[in-house]
Amino acid sequence: MKILLIGASGTVGQAVEKELSQSEYEIIRAGRTSGDFHVDITSDDSVAALFENVGRIDAIVATTGNLFFGPLEKMTSRDFAIGLQDKLLGQVRLALTGQHYLRDEGSITLTSGIVGQEPIAQGVNATTVNAALEGFVKAAACELKRGQRINVVSPTLLSESQETYGPFFPGFESVPATRVALAYRRSIEGVQTGRVYTVGY
Amino acid sequence: MKILLIGASGTVGQAVEKELSQSEYEIIRAGRTSGDFHVDITSDDSVAALFENVGRIDAIVATTGNLFFGPLEKMTSRDFAIGLQDKLLGQVRLALTGQHYLRDEGSITLTSGIVGQEPIAQGVNATTVNAALEGFVKAAACELKRGQRINVVSPTLLSESQETYGPFFPGFESVPATRVALAYRRSIEGVQTGRVYTVGY
Repeated sequence: MKILLIGASGTVGQAVEKELSQSEYEIIRAGRTSGDFHVDITSDDSVAALFENVGRIDAIVATTGNLFFGPLEKMTSRDFAIGLQDKLLGQVRLALTGQHYLRDEGSITLTSGIVGQEPIAQGVNATTVNAALEGFVKAAACELKRGQRINVVSPTLLSESQETYGPFFPGFESVPATRVALAYRRSIEGVQTGRVYTVGY
Repeated sequence: MKILLIGASGTVGQAVEKELSQSEYEIIRAGRTSGDFHVDITSDDSVAALFENVGRIDAIVATTGNLFFGPLEKMTSRDFAIGLQDKLLGQVRLALTGQHYLRDEGSITLTSGIVGQEPIAQGVNATTVNAALEGFVKAAACELKRGQRINVVSPTLLSESQETYGPFFPGFESVPATRVALAYRRSIEGVQTGRVYTVGY
Protein backbone atom coordinates (compact mmCIF):
# COMPACT_ATOMS: atom_id res chain seq x y z
CA MET A 1 0.00 0.00 0.00
CA LYS A 2 1.41 3.32 -1.17
CA ILE A 3 0.88 6.41 0.95
CA LEU A 4 1.69 9.97 -0.11
CA LEU A 5 2.53 12.10 2.94
CA ILE A 6 2.65 15.84 2.27
CA GLY A 7 4.24 17.80 5.09
CA ALA A 8 6.43 14.88 6.07
CA SER A 9 9.12 16.99 7.74
CA GLY A 10 6.79 18.67 10.25
CA THR A 11 6.27 17.50 13.81
CA VAL A 12 3.02 15.74 12.96
CA GLY A 13 4.31 14.49 9.61
CA GLN A 14 7.34 12.87 11.23
CA ALA A 15 5.17 11.19 13.83
CA VAL A 16 2.77 9.92 11.16
CA GLU A 17 5.67 8.50 9.18
CA LYS A 18 7.03 6.76 12.28
CA GLU A 19 3.61 5.35 13.18
CA LEU A 20 2.89 4.08 9.65
CA SER A 21 6.39 2.70 9.11
CA GLN A 22 5.54 0.02 11.68
CA SER A 23 3.30 -1.49 8.97
CA GLU A 24 4.26 -2.58 5.49
CA TYR A 25 3.48 0.68 3.78
CA GLU A 26 5.45 2.39 1.10
CA ILE A 27 5.59 5.98 2.32
CA ILE A 28 6.36 8.73 -0.17
CA ARG A 29 7.43 11.90 1.59
CA ALA A 30 6.68 15.29 0.09
CA GLY A 31 7.45 18.76 1.40
CA ARG A 32 8.21 22.29 0.32
CA THR A 33 11.97 21.88 0.55
CA SER A 34 12.57 18.32 1.72
CA GLY A 35 11.41 14.74 1.20
CA ASP A 36 11.25 12.49 -1.85
CA PHE A 37 9.31 15.11 -3.80
CA HIS A 38 9.15 18.87 -3.43
CA VAL A 39 5.76 20.53 -3.72
CA ASP A 40 4.28 23.98 -3.31
CA ILE A 41 0.68 23.32 -2.24
CA THR A 42 -0.33 26.86 -3.27
CA SER A 43 0.46 26.06 -6.92
CA ASP A 44 -1.78 24.06 -9.26
CA ASP A 45 1.19 23.18 -11.46
CA SER A 46 3.32 22.02 -8.57
CA VAL A 47 0.57 19.82 -7.10
CA ALA A 48 -0.28 18.39 -10.54
CA ALA A 49 3.39 17.56 -11.09
CA LEU A 50 3.61 15.85 -7.70
CA PHE A 51 0.74 13.49 -8.47
CA GLU A 52 1.96 12.86 -12.02
CA ASN A 53 5.35 11.86 -10.63
CA VAL A 54 4.00 9.74 -7.81
CA GLY A 55 1.27 7.98 -9.83
CA ARG A 56 -1.47 5.79 -8.36
CA ILE A 57 -1.67 5.81 -4.57
CA ASP A 58 -3.76 4.20 -1.85
CA ALA A 59 -3.79 7.07 0.63
CA ILE A 60 -3.07 10.78 0.74
CA VAL A 61 -2.14 12.41 4.04
CA ALA A 62 -1.66 16.18 4.33
CA THR A 63 -0.06 17.54 7.51
CA THR A 64 0.86 20.93 6.14
CA GLY A 65 -0.26 24.51 5.60
CA ASN A 66 0.46 28.02 6.87
CA LEU A 67 -1.89 30.32 8.73
CA PHE A 68 -1.81 33.98 9.74
CA PHE A 69 -1.68 34.85 13.42
CA GLY A 70 -2.26 38.39 14.63
CA PRO A 71 -4.80 40.61 16.40
CA LEU A 72 -8.15 41.10 14.68
CA GLU A 73 -7.89 44.85 15.19
CA LYS A 74 -4.92 45.11 12.84
CA MET A 75 -5.79 42.28 10.48
CA THR A 76 -6.10 43.06 6.76
CA SER A 77 -7.74 41.00 4.07
CA ARG A 78 -4.25 40.35 2.73
CA ASP A 79 -3.19 38.87 6.07
CA PHE A 80 -6.36 36.81 6.12
CA ALA A 81 -5.79 35.49 2.61
CA ILE A 82 -2.57 33.79 3.78
CA GLY A 83 -4.42 30.98 5.53
CA LEU A 84 -7.04 30.78 2.77
CA GLN A 85 -4.42 30.38 0.04
CA ASP A 86 -2.03 28.14 1.96
CA LYS A 87 -3.52 25.80 4.56
CA LEU A 88 -7.11 25.88 3.25
CA LEU A 89 -6.86 25.98 -0.52
CA GLY A 90 -3.54 24.10 -0.36
CA GLN A 91 -5.07 21.08 1.35
CA VAL A 92 -8.25 21.36 -0.74
CA ARG A 93 -6.10 21.41 -3.88
CA LEU A 94 -4.37 18.20 -2.75
CA ALA A 95 -7.79 16.57 -2.35
CA LEU A 96 -9.28 17.90 -5.61
CA THR A 97 -6.29 16.80 -7.67
CA GLY A 98 -5.51 13.76 -5.58
CA GLN A 99 -8.94 12.15 -6.00
CA HIS A 100 -8.01 11.38 -9.61
CA TYR A 101 -4.84 9.51 -8.61
CA LEU A 102 -6.35 7.72 -5.65
CA ARG A 103 -7.28 4.06 -5.99
CA ASP A 104 -10.80 2.77 -5.36
CA GLU A 105 -11.51 2.73 -1.61
CA GLY A 106 -8.46 4.93 -1.03
CA SER A 107 -8.44 7.60 1.67
CA ILE A 108 -7.57 11.26 1.99
CA THR A 109 -6.68 12.58 5.45
CA LEU A 110 -6.31 16.31 6.03
CA THR A 111 -5.28 18.27 9.14
CA SER A 112 -7.15 21.06 10.93
CA GLY A 113 -6.55 21.83 14.63
CA ILE A 114 -8.27 22.59 17.93
CA VAL A 115 -8.42 26.32 17.16
CA GLY A 116 -11.09 25.52 14.58
CA GLN A 117 -13.40 24.83 17.46
CA GLU A 118 -11.74 26.69 20.32
CA PRO A 119 -10.71 30.25 19.42
CA ILE A 120 -7.48 31.64 20.89
CA ALA A 121 -6.06 35.17 20.92
CA GLN A 122 -4.83 36.28 17.48
CA GLY A 123 -6.26 33.10 15.99
CA VAL A 124 -9.18 34.34 13.89
CA ASN A 125 -7.58 33.18 10.66
CA ALA A 126 -6.78 29.78 12.18
CA THR A 127 -10.32 29.24 13.46
CA THR A 128 -11.76 30.17 10.07
CA VAL A 129 -9.42 27.97 8.05
CA ASN A 130 -9.70 24.94 10.32
CA ALA A 131 -13.50 25.22 10.44
CA ALA A 132 -13.48 25.49 6.66
CA LEU A 133 -11.38 22.33 6.28
CA GLU A 134 -13.77 20.46 8.54
CA GLY A 135 -16.69 21.66 6.42
CA PHE A 136 -14.89 20.66 3.25
CA VAL A 137 -14.29 17.13 4.49
CA LYS A 138 -17.90 16.67 5.61
CA ALA A 139 -19.20 17.76 2.21
CA ALA A 140 -16.55 16.05 0.06
CA ALA A 141 -17.23 12.75 1.84
CA CYS A 142 -20.75 12.85 0.40
CA GLU A 143 -19.50 13.20 -3.17
CA LEU A 144 -16.30 11.17 -3.48
CA LYS A 145 -16.61 8.27 -5.94
CA ARG A 146 -15.37 4.67 -6.06
CA GLY A 147 -15.53 4.15 -2.29
CA GLN A 148 -12.94 6.83 -1.65
CA ARG A 149 -13.03 8.32 1.84
CA ILE A 150 -11.94 11.63 3.38
CA ASN A 151 -11.39 12.64 7.01
CA VAL A 152 -9.60 15.36 8.93
CA VAL A 153 -7.51 15.14 12.09
CA SER A 154 -7.84 18.01 14.56
CA PRO A 155 -5.18 17.83 17.28
CA THR A 156 -4.89 20.06 20.30
CA LEU A 157 -1.54 21.75 21.05
CA LEU A 158 1.32 19.30 20.54
CA SER A 159 3.51 18.58 23.54
CA GLU A 160 6.46 19.09 21.20
CA SER A 161 5.24 22.65 20.50
CA GLN A 162 4.50 23.51 24.12
CA GLU A 163 7.57 25.69 24.56
CA THR A 164 6.97 27.73 21.38
CA TYR A 165 3.17 27.95 21.25
CA GLY A 166 2.17 27.17 24.84
CA PRO A 167 1.63 30.85 25.77
CA PHE A 168 -1.07 31.09 23.07
CA PHE A 169 -2.91 28.11 24.60
CA PRO A 170 -3.35 29.00 28.27
CA GLY A 171 -4.83 26.10 30.21
CA PHE A 172 -5.01 23.84 27.17
CA GLU A 173 -3.80 20.27 27.61
CA SER A 174 -1.18 19.20 25.11
CA VAL A 175 -0.82 15.85 23.39
CA PRO A 176 2.30 14.04 22.14
CA ALA A 177 2.56 13.76 18.35
CA THR A 178 2.68 9.97 18.69
CA ARG A 179 -0.95 10.03 19.88
CA VAL A 180 -1.96 12.40 17.07
CA ALA A 181 -0.36 10.03 14.56
CA LEU A 182 -2.73 7.26 15.60
CA ALA A 183 -5.68 9.26 14.25
CA TYR A 184 -4.16 9.20 10.77
CA ARG A 185 -3.88 5.42 10.95
CA ARG A 186 -7.48 5.32 12.09
CA SER A 187 -8.51 7.35 9.05
CA ILE A 188 -6.40 5.30 6.61
CA GLU A 189 -7.28 1.83 7.85
CA GLY A 190 -10.81 2.49 9.13
CA VAL A 191 -14.10 2.57 7.27
CA GLN A 192 -15.41 5.99 8.28
CA THR A 193 -15.67 9.05 6.08
CA GLY A 194 -16.49 12.71 6.62
CA ARG A 195 -15.19 12.51 10.18
CA VAL A 196 -13.33 15.09 12.23
CA TYR A 197 -10.99 13.11 14.49
CA THR A 198 -10.22 15.32 17.47
CA VAL A 199 -7.13 14.31 19.42
CA GLY A 200 -6.43 15.42 22.98
CA TYR A 201 -9.63 17.40 23.46
CA MET B 1 -29.28 54.42 14.47
CA LYS B 2 -27.49 54.02 11.18
CA ILE B 3 -27.32 50.60 9.54
CA LEU B 4 -25.21 49.69 6.52
CA LEU B 5 -26.83 46.85 4.56
CA ILE B 6 -24.58 45.25 1.95
CA GLY B 7 -26.48 43.03 -0.47
CA ALA B 8 -29.65 45.07 -0.11
CA SER B 9 -31.13 44.05 -3.44
CA GLY B 10 -31.08 40.30 -2.78
CA THR B 11 -34.02 38.31 -1.48
CA VAL B 12 -32.72 38.29 2.09
CA GLY B 13 -31.45 41.88 1.85
CA GLN B 14 -34.85 43.16 0.75
CA ALA B 15 -36.56 41.31 3.58
CA VAL B 16 -34.08 42.67 6.11
CA GLU B 17 -34.65 46.20 4.87
CA LYS B 18 -38.41 45.74 5.14
CA GLU B 19 -38.14 44.28 8.63
CA LEU B 20 -35.83 47.02 9.92
CA SER B 21 -37.74 49.84 8.24
CA GLN B 22 -40.52 49.20 10.75
CA SER B 23 -38.20 50.80 13.32
CA GLU B 24 -36.60 54.22 13.23
CA TYR B 25 -33.39 53.16 11.57
CA GLU B 26 -31.52 54.98 8.87
CA ILE B 27 -30.75 52.19 6.40
CA ILE B 28 -27.95 52.68 3.89
CA ARG B 29 -28.24 50.24 1.02
CA ALA B 30 -25.15 48.97 -0.75
CA GLY B 31 -24.82 46.53 -3.61
CA ARG B 32 -22.68 45.62 -6.57
CA THR B 33 -24.80 47.52 -9.06
CA SER B 34 -27.67 49.01 -7.09
CA GLY B 35 -28.43 50.81 -3.83
CA ASP B 36 -27.22 54.07 -2.30
CA PHE B 37 -23.60 52.97 -2.71
CA HIS B 38 -21.99 50.52 -5.10
CA VAL B 39 -19.39 48.15 -3.72
CA ASP B 40 -17.33 45.22 -4.93
CA ILE B 41 -16.73 43.14 -1.79
CA THR B 42 -13.80 41.35 -3.46
CA SER B 43 -11.86 44.63 -3.63
CA ASP B 44 -10.04 46.26 -0.70
CA ASP B 45 -10.22 49.66 -2.35
CA SER B 46 -13.93 49.39 -3.07
CA VAL B 47 -14.78 48.32 0.49
CA ALA B 48 -12.53 51.02 1.98
CA ALA B 49 -14.24 53.64 -0.21
CA LEU B 50 -17.67 52.42 0.89
CA PHE B 51 -16.89 52.88 4.57
CA GLU B 52 -15.14 56.22 3.98
CA ASN B 53 -18.24 57.47 2.19
CA VAL B 54 -20.72 56.11 4.71
CA GLY B 55 -18.79 57.14 7.83
CA ARG B 56 -19.64 56.06 11.38
CA ILE B 57 -22.33 53.41 11.66
CA ASP B 58 -24.13 51.46 14.37
CA ALA B 59 -24.58 48.18 12.55
CA ILE B 60 -23.21 46.36 9.53
CA VAL B 61 -25.31 43.68 7.84
CA ALA B 62 -23.93 41.60 4.98
CA THR B 63 -26.38 39.47 2.96
CA THR B 64 -24.16 38.93 -0.03
CA GLY B 65 -21.52 36.74 -1.64
CA ASN B 66 -21.10 34.27 -4.49
CA LEU B 67 -20.26 30.59 -4.24
CA PHE B 68 -19.28 27.91 -6.71
CA PHE B 69 -21.64 25.00 -7.30
CA GLY B 70 -20.55 21.91 -9.20
CA PRO B 71 -19.61 18.25 -8.76
CA LEU B 72 -16.51 17.51 -6.68
CA GLU B 73 -15.20 15.21 -9.38
CA LYS B 74 -14.75 18.07 -11.83
CA MET B 75 -13.95 20.82 -9.36
CA THR B 76 -10.69 22.73 -9.78
CA SER B 77 -8.92 24.92 -7.27
CA ARG B 78 -9.88 27.87 -9.45
CA ASP B 79 -13.57 26.96 -9.12
CA PHE B 80 -13.10 26.54 -5.40
CA ALA B 81 -11.41 29.92 -5.05
CA ILE B 82 -14.61 31.66 -6.23
CA GLY B 83 -16.38 31.15 -2.91
CA LEU B 84 -13.21 31.86 -0.94
CA GLN B 85 -12.61 35.19 -2.69
CA ASP B 86 -16.24 36.30 -2.88
CA LYS B 87 -18.59 35.15 -0.12
CA LEU B 88 -15.90 34.26 2.43
CA LEU B 89 -13.16 36.87 2.06
CA GLY B 90 -15.75 39.40 0.87
CA GLN B 91 -17.76 39.22 4.09
CA VAL B 92 -14.57 38.93 6.19
CA ARG B 93 -13.24 42.08 4.46
CA LEU B 94 -16.44 43.93 5.37
CA ALA B 95 -15.92 42.92 9.01
CA LEU B 96 -12.17 43.65 9.11
CA THR B 97 -12.58 47.09 7.57
CA GLY B 98 -15.96 47.77 9.11
CA GLN B 99 -14.80 47.31 12.72
CA HIS B 100 -12.94 50.62 12.42
CA TYR B 101 -16.08 52.52 11.36
CA LEU B 102 -18.42 50.80 13.79
CA ARG B 103 -19.48 52.65 16.93
CA ASP B 104 -18.90 51.24 20.41
CA GLU B 105 -21.35 48.41 21.08
CA GLY B 106 -22.16 48.24 17.38
CA SER B 107 -22.89 44.96 15.67
CA ILE B 108 -21.78 43.09 12.57
CA THR B 109 -24.12 40.44 11.13
CA LEU B 110 -22.93 38.14 8.37
CA THR B 111 -24.77 35.44 6.39
CA SER B 112 -23.87 31.79 5.95
CA GLY B 113 -26.51 29.13 5.11
CA ILE B 114 -27.76 25.67 5.97
CA VAL B 115 -25.34 24.02 3.53
CA GLY B 116 -22.55 24.93 5.97
CA GLN B 117 -23.93 22.25 8.25
CA GLU B 118 -25.94 20.07 5.86
CA PRO B 119 -24.04 19.18 2.66
CA ILE B 120 -25.97 18.97 -0.62
CA ALA B 121 -24.95 17.66 -4.04
CA GLN B 122 -22.46 19.94 -5.80
CA GLY B 123 -22.23 22.04 -2.65
CA VAL B 124 -18.69 21.35 -1.39
CA ASN B 125 -17.62 24.95 -1.90
CA ALA B 126 -20.76 26.22 -0.16
CA THR B 127 -20.30 23.96 2.87
CA THR B 128 -16.67 25.02 3.20
CA VAL B 129 -17.34 28.75 2.88
CA ASN B 130 -20.35 28.77 5.20
CA ALA B 131 -18.51 26.72 7.83
CA ALA B 132 -15.59 29.13 7.51
CA LEU B 133 -17.83 32.16 8.06
CA GLU B 134 -19.28 30.53 11.17
CA GLY B 135 -15.75 29.87 12.45
CA PHE B 136 -14.75 33.44 11.68
CA VAL B 137 -17.64 34.87 13.66
CA LYS B 138 -16.99 32.64 16.68
CA ALA B 139 -13.33 33.70 16.79
CA ALA B 140 -13.83 37.37 15.91
CA ALA B 141 -16.42 37.70 18.70
CA CYS B 142 -13.63 36.92 21.20
CA GLU B 143 -11.42 39.72 19.92
CA LEU B 144 -13.67 42.61 18.89
CA LYS B 145 -13.09 45.75 20.99
CA ARG B 146 -15.34 48.44 22.49
CA GLY B 147 -18.29 46.15 23.09
CA GLN B 148 -18.70 45.44 19.40
CA ARG B 149 -20.50 42.20 18.57
CA ILE B 150 -20.57 39.85 15.60
CA ASN B 151 -23.03 37.10 14.63
CA VAL B 152 -23.97 35.14 11.54
CA VAL B 153 -27.40 34.15 10.23
CA SER B 154 -27.70 30.70 8.64
CA PRO B 155 -31.04 30.27 6.86
CA THR B 156 -32.33 27.12 5.24
CA LEU B 157 -33.64 27.28 1.65
CA LEU B 158 -35.80 30.37 1.16
CA SER B 159 -39.40 29.81 0.13
CA GLU B 160 -38.82 32.52 -2.47
CA SER B 161 -36.01 30.40 -3.98
CA GLN B 162 -37.92 27.11 -3.87
CA GLU B 163 -38.63 27.08 -7.59
CA THR B 164 -35.04 27.79 -8.64
CA TYR B 165 -33.04 25.93 -5.99
CA GLY B 166 -35.57 23.47 -4.60
CA PRO B 167 -34.25 20.51 -6.65
CA PHE B 168 -30.88 20.90 -4.90
CA PHE B 169 -32.57 20.67 -1.49
CA PRO B 170 -34.64 17.47 -1.65
CA GLY B 171 -36.78 17.10 1.46
CA PHE B 172 -35.53 20.33 3.02
CA GLU B 173 -38.14 22.61 4.54
CA SER B 174 -38.04 26.16 3.24
CA VAL B 175 -38.55 29.37 5.17
CA PRO B 176 -39.96 32.73 4.04
CA ALA B 177 -37.43 35.57 3.91
CA THR B 178 -39.56 37.51 6.40
CA ARG B 179 -38.69 34.94 9.07
CA VAL B 180 -35.02 35.02 8.13
CA ALA B 181 -35.05 38.81 8.47
CA LEU B 182 -36.04 38.52 12.13
CA ALA B 183 -32.70 36.87 12.92
CA TYR B 184 -30.88 39.99 11.71
CA ARG B 185 -32.96 42.12 14.05
CA ARG B 186 -32.14 39.66 16.83
CA SER B 187 -28.43 40.09 16.11
CA ILE B 188 -28.61 43.90 15.85
CA GLU B 189 -30.77 44.58 18.88
CA GLY B 190 -29.76 41.65 21.09
CA VAL B 191 -26.80 41.27 23.41
CA GLN B 192 -25.28 38.03 22.10
CA THR B 193 -22.06 37.68 20.17
CA GLY B 194 -20.29 34.86 18.33
CA ARG B 195 -23.63 33.21 17.62
CA VAL B 196 -24.78 31.27 14.58
CA TYR B 197 -28.51 31.98 14.24
CA THR B 198 -30.01 29.12 12.29
CA VAL B 199 -33.40 29.86 10.75
CA GLY B 200 -35.81 27.18 9.59
CA TYR B 201 -33.72 24.20 10.65
